Amino acid sequence: MGQVSTPIIALITACFTVISFGLQASTLAQVETPTPKNIIIMIGDGMGPAYTSAYRYYKDNPSTNEVEETVFDRLLVGTSSTYPAKESGYITDSAAAATALATGEKSYNGAISVNAQHQPLTTLFELAYKQGKKTGIAVTSQVNHATPAAFISHNESRRNYEQIAKSYLKSNTDVILGGGQRYFPKSLLQQFQSQGYQTLTNIEQLSSSSSKKVLGLFADVQLPWAIDDKQAQYLTQMTQHALKTLEQSPRGFVLLVEGSLIDWAGHDNDIATAMHELDEFASAIEVAEQYVRQNPQTLLLVTADHSTGGMTVAANGEYQWRPEILKSIAATPQAIATQAASEANWLTSVQSQLGIQLTEQELATLKVAYPHGEKAIHKVLKKLIDVRSNTGWTGNGHTGIDVQVFAKGAGSELFHGFQDNTEIAQKLFRLIQQQN
Amino acid sequence: MGQVSTPIIALITACFTVISFGLQASTLAQVETPTPKNIIIMIGDGMGPAYTSAYRYYKDNPSTNEVEETVFDRLLVGTSSTYPAKESGYITDSAAAATALATGEKSYNGAISVNAQHQPLTTLFELAYKQGKKTGIAVTSQVNHATPAAFISHNESRRNYEQIAKSYLKSNTDVILGGGQRYFPKSLLQQFQSQGYQTLTNIEQLSSSSSKKVLGLFADVQLPWAIDDKQAQYLTQMTQHALKTLEQSPRGFVLLVEGSLIDWAGHDNDIATAMHELDEFASAIEVAEQYVRQNPQTLLLVTADHSTGGMTVAANGEYQWRPEILKSIAATPQAIATQAASEANWLTSVQSQLGIQLTEQELATLKVAYPHGEKAIHKVLKKLIDVRSNTGWTGNGHTGIDVQVFAKGAGSELFHGFQDNTEIAQKLFRLIQQQN
Repeated sequence: MGQVSTPIIALITACFTVISFGLQASTLAQVETPTPKNIIIMIGDGMGPAYTSAYRYYKDNPSTNEVEETVFDRLLVGTSSTYPAKESGYITDSAAAATALATGEKSYNGAISVNAQHQPLTTLFELAYKQGKKTGIAVTSQVNHATPAAFISHNESRRNYEQIAKSYLKSNTDVILGGGQRYFPKSLLQQFQSQGYQTLTNIEQLSSSSSKKVLGLFADVQLPWAIDDKQAQYLTQMTQHALKTLEQSPRGFVLLVEGSLIDWAGHDNDIATAMHELDEFASAIEVAEQYVRQNPQTLLLVTADHSTGGMTVAANGEYQWRPEILKSIAATPQAIATQAASEANWLTSVQSQLGIQLTEQELATLKVAYPHGEKAIHKVLKKLIDVRSNTGWTGNGHTGIDVQVFAKGAGSELFHGFQDNTEIAQKLFRLIQQQN
Repeated sequence: MGQVSTPIIALITACFTVISFGLQASTLAQVETPTPKNIIIMIGDGMGPAYTSAYRYYKDNPSTNEVEETVFDRLLVGTSSTYPAKESGYITDSAAAATALATGEKSYNGAISVNAQHQPLTTLFELAYKQGKKTGIAVTSQVNHATPAAFISHNESRRNYEQIAKSYLKSNTDVILGGGQRYFPKSLLQQFQSQGYQTLTNIEQLSSSSSKKVLGLFADVQLPWAIDDKQAQYLTQMTQHALKTLEQSPRGFVLLVEGSLIDWAGHDNDIATAMHELDEFASAIEVAEQYVRQNPQTLLLVTADHSTGGMTVAANGEYQWRPEILKSIAATPQAIATQAASEANWLTSVQSQLGIQLTEQELATLKVAYPHGEKAIHKVLKKLIDVRSNTGWTGNGHTGIDVQVFAKGAGSELFHGFQDNTEIAQKLFRLIQQQN
């Protein structure tokens, strides 16, 4: 066989170089969905699409000609239906919705990760634990409220708060942060301690805590309203601490963060309190968003369980929505009413806490309500804020409008477009299972 | 230089074969957004997210355990903000929203594709015409109503119906189908004819029409309500005819289809009529969806201009929405009231037209309203339907909730995620410009 000369060898080498480039490109052509090591699920309880739209206008900088985009606008990828199992009709409660998001199965309103026969359904947290991942929750309601409960527990009724609290002991959940001291008596706390949990009662203790297992209960039931202490940032702090603690897990983690009180403000038809809760939830999302940027092996999935109160951005046939008063108000209408009811100089204090000059008519309505006490003043204040901002409500319960889905990071493209809430969980299950 | 032997030649040939494969793959790796030859824009006027959610449950087959997906679920890709130019606040009217969707620019409420200085803004239809494309509209309102007007005309006010109608003559729009005979007097129709338009007044004439330019006005103002004649399918027929006519264009077309009356039913807080209008709009979308499947060079883009009436799926604190009565009702509450007011045996006819057995209380309320005539009966009927279905409303105007974006076909991936309504038009402009 003829001798192979140098130029030919060079040519062949060149060939293989180009081939390898070509093959690299062809591999890139069919990129697999990246499997996240960590998953952060964030639920805005009651945060239907009217809330995130309102929030954009509430946050808008009036001194620019544009309307600034929010973190929700940046992260939106799709929408989700929220209906429960057919026996409960088309409108879900927080328990059935959380069960769908935690297990991928529809159940009845009130169910905490059990099916119609009250049999336990496997949760994302249980699967994550099997896969060697750490799990945690950070919420602004009591930690044993419906949404977090569906990720940690199984119960035929969301109302069994004591049973649910006790069940957390055997749940292998590493980080439990929120409110609910009344459901965790000393004896129960001691059992948590003997299982290696550091138990905290004051949010300041978080900064000095380095325990790998922590149960932090920072209020008797719910955490303080964001509007009452705009610097506190409870949910942001708890999210930061949960991430710091869970990221030590070699095989990754699953964290649930809930802006629980958006829903409570919605049930109360209190738009001012709702916008401030949404603002605190948005701040916590930005913490998670930054975490994903710095840890690309992480998936951030944000959604709502349903919408609450039938809130509408504008009402009464008037084509205006005026968020100004929602920015100037200093406390919840409830807190303002409570203070007013016990003050001599109540009108001045109401006016200064609302941060507005009351009209003659507004003053008159308040004066009529005053003798009837706190409850009546509270009602008038909420109505006054609705009229000033032109906000509408259709009731104190939930509605069936589809909610939005927001995502960023590894696997986020799976959530583009429309999906049912059970499909969100099913996709998360697949992503966790892919790892083994 | 030494002789090159056959096996080496073979090897080199092999190299180049593999290289070419590799390069093909690498080219596939960076696929360009395909440029559509045809664009179908469909606008559900007033069709906010509560409407498409309600529609899913309205269409749900009660005899299956699942809730069936709708065409909206199949096509959802993102959402859009709808606010007008800042001078008009945060809540848009149909004119400013249509101007945004037709020109990519924000303007004031009432503007028909003009800016704040009343200067004309270039429309998608004008650009399409420059590119040698044919254009057309098919709507259920009068053809010179705000939404279609913004694509065809320029005017400082949507209220100048006569001016807008006249301006259509010089608009180079090939297909104009909808209502509005009263705005097109004989003299104007003759001018259209002398410009080569076939003018039609009866929808049956469509089947025999083969004219390349057609002005079809099938009602004095709006077309008949879908609920009053469930077989008529006006919008579906007009969409089919527009596609048949426009697809003869060698350089493609841009078609606007509007489900105009969803908004009108919303302004009237009439959920039964709204669901039937939405059903007809969905049927027209399915025609377009099939057209895209058969003509992949086509982009289908569906959205809404805003939401109307502050409609909510469930209300009054009750976690139920019951669409049954919306299916059994035989005509608009208005038509039922009109007939009842002039009938001796009115209660029997009301009952049969609602398709339900009225309760004692419902009968009593109707009897109280009857002496006050048609208007009072109409009001009671709408209230009765809201209570039966548990539907909520917060007013007769528009609201600021973000709307949904649905897309399929060439270039559809550009519309994924969140965008402002002006960005939708800007993306369409880019797609049309890409062609030259």
